[in-house]
Amino acid sequence: MDLDPAQLLTVAREEALLGKSEGGVPIGAALFTVDGELLGRGHNRRVQDGDPSMHAETAAFRNAGRRPHYRDTIMVTTLSPCWYCSGLVRQFAIPHVVIGESRTFTGGHEWLAEHGVTVTLLDDPECVKLMTEFIAEHPELWFEDIGTSS
Amino acid sequence: MDLDPAQLLTVAREEALLGKSEGGVPIGAALFTVDGELLGRGHNRRVQDGDPSMHAETAAFRNAGRRPHYRDTIMVTTLSPCWYCSGLVRQFAIPHVVIGESRTFTGGHEWLAEHGVTVTLLDDPECVKLMTEFIAEHPELWFEDIGTSS
Repeated sequence: MDLDPAQLLTVAREEALLGKSEGGVPIGAALFTVDGELLGRGHNRRVQDGDPSMHAETAAFRNAGRRPHYRDTIMVTTLSPCWYCSGLVRQFAIPHVVIGESRTFTGGHEWLAEHGVTVTLLDDPECVKLMTEFIAEHPELWFEDIGTSS
Repeated sequence: MDLDPAQLLTVAREEALLGKSEGGVPIGAALFTVDGELLGRGHNRRVQDGDPSMHAETAAFRNAGRRPHYRDTIMVTTLSPCWYCSGLVRQFAIPHVVIGESRTFTGGHEWLAEHGVTVTLLDDPECVKLMTEFIAEHPELWFEDIGTSS
């Protein structure tokens, strides 16, 4: 089965929009099998749950439940994964990451590629727009979410 | 105030023992300020909550709640932090990590040191004993927790 990365991204983008509608950080993610089965989806929950540990990728990973391994999975996220979420991908040996955009933020995806992860970097205008508007409207929340507030 | 790393470790070790008593992965962690104030403590919750995203460090980080920054904090953990938890430390710019032991597992603490994190590596016999016994008794659970089951 040939998976279309842009099609997989639609699920992560829906999650990001859901997060936005809840007043949260608008980043979404989804974990699929390489056959396209959805294992888990989620979005950043810092605001909604007061939980700084739930980035989009960790929320999707959590929602997929316990698995013996991840060698047949693809992590899809609307934004370049930060070091925390890149570390998740590396530790659990998720072999493929699909990224909506890295214009507004670049995390560790090049490091992942250096360590053998297949990285598919899209340049999705809707994802760029979501984050551009969010960062302009809520800079303090964004800096808090990536640990760089001054 | 001069903090004693071994003293800080006692809190993380209590968490690890609590995790063991619950039938879980016996790894504990705690987040302190550099003045020794306890911000959050926690232990691995894979078994207890069916939650693969809650390693000891992420649980302690979550339990500390939302913070604008982490520049005055110390992460204390019973075991060398895996890539996921090392990524957490790097992303949120936690400047100091105290580690109970790295005999039974070595994650990303050398990478953290290369990126400016102060790493205090202890060689605590109780932490070593906890993990040695756990890995011998539950190898499949341990490999699942670090994403390397075969």
